[in-house]
Amino acid sequence: MIDRKEGRAFLSNKIWEEVDRQLKKTDQMEGKPQPPLEKSSEGYELIKLPDPNAVNLHMKDLKEIIFSRESRRIFSDDKISLESLSFLLWSTQGVKGVLKNNYATLRTVPSAGARHPFETYLFVRLVKGLKKGLYRYVALSHSLIFLKEGDFAKEVAEAALGQKFVGQCAVTFVWSVIPYRTEWRYDLTSYKPILLDAGHVCQNLYLACEALNLGTCAIAAYDQTKTDELIGLDGYDEFAIYMAPVGKPKKY
Amino acid sequence: MIDRKEGRAFLSNKIWEEVDRQLKKTDQMEGKPQPPLEKSSEGYELIKLPDPNAVNLHMKDLKEIIFSRESRRIFSDDKISLESLSFLLWSTQGVKGVLKNNYATLRTVPSAGARHPFETYLFVRLVKGLKKGLYRYVALSHSLIFLKEGDFAKEVAEAALGQKFVGQCAVTFVWSVIPYRTEWRYDLTSYKPILLDAGHVCQNLYLACEALNLGTCAIAAYDQTKTDELIGLDGYDEFAIYMAPVGKPKKY
Repeated sequence: MIDRKEGRAFLSNKIWEEVDRQLKKTDQMEGKPQPPLEKSSEGYELIKLPDPNAVNLHMKDLKEIIFSRESRRIFSDDKISLESLSFLLWSTQGVKGVLKNNYATLRTVPSAGARHPFETYLFVRLVKGLKKGLYRYVALSHSLIFLKEGDFAKEVAEAALGQKFVGQCAVTFVWSVIPYRTEWRYDLTSYKPILLDAGHVCQNLYLACEALNLGTCAIAAYDQTKTDELIGLDGYDEFAIYMAPVGKPKKY
Repeated sequence: MIDRKEGRAFLSNKIWEEVDRQLKKTDQMEGKPQPPLEKSSEGYELIKLPDPNAVNLHMKDLKEIIFSRESRRIFSDDKISLESLSFLLWSTQGVKGVLKNNYATLRTVPSAGARHPFETYLFVRLVKGLKKGLYRYVALSHSLIFLKEGDFAKEVAEAALGQKFVGQCAVTFVWSVIPYRTEWRYDLTSYKPILLDAGHVCQNLYLACEALNLGTCAIAAYDQTKTDELIGLDGYDEFAIYMAPVGKPKKY
């Protein structure tokens, strides 16, 4: 159990002073193999997503988008298009390029050392052309893997500590983290940057939703064990870190 | 000194399971006074910033902005306009409204419980109409306070562990955190959301820069003690949490 002193230290860079010498002994420096850029999709059928450029952005400029953005919690039962979902996935984790020797991906969001330690899971309910169920985004090929069929509105709401709207939406984004992707390079200084990086991702989701006249609300309050179990994550080498329901707002 | 197990636990929501009962005993629940929405500007002269809507966004839409965004580290010696700086400050911490009884600010970025625990400091070097020096943003009145005159390029670079470009730019943003603003409501579960919130802020800076044909690069690697001393923060009740130099990229 932490106290305020430890919690605040975690927000700071004080750990850099302690591990300075050790950073020269990271797994990367010691020549240990680099972890994969993303989770394997071997053996899965890939559902290719449409071109993320196909969406209509309603001619909004960034000022309008930032000004009108707010956390939206009441969604209609309207379906969203697969093009919209494609744009949301691309805006949050889309790959713009891969560096030499597969060293790193360059994505639509910044990440410390270009480590990009996240995976994206979707609980789909109201997306045209997709069955209800759990999906994983495969960023390198801009496609989806279908993991499990079903309407998980109730289970997602329970995982979100009873917040019903988190399940009652078109699609709930859940980002997981695979910490070793960042630890390989930054060792014990990884944890603060990983959370900053997750914030970058979620902010792009907010803005991309707003540009499409969709709505979202970042959810930091969720049950770790229930969420990990629902997706099938081991809770240590990969676990949920942030989530956000997306839908058409009832009033806009 | 933490280890990987503790570090990873910090990324997760496991602490919610431990503090669940205690969250009913937060300072807010116990009726303790709410901390101020921002740091006091009493006794300081306010430099009113121009309307953030006055900038030219080069007709870029969000797709183009997200696609072209990258971390930029090489800046020209060109000055940026005060209108541009105004837009960057508004996009990252601008206040859109204040709730009843001054309970919370609604800003251009989301923050857990609308607590908005950050302050923005600027090391200004190349901004038209502003003297070189250290400033603080006063979000509630969209204005600046001039704290200290001087060209701090060298000191800022040293605070950023010798990364010269962090000082050699038009203006370096340094966000501090006042943890109690969030702790008052969320107690020991505050720390993860605070870092996610800082990520939201920095992502808006990236996109706002890109919309203005400016560039930035998020800096998570900095010396905590040197940075706090340079700004004059006590390092416990307020301390630096993230930084980002901004300028006109040499090549764009």
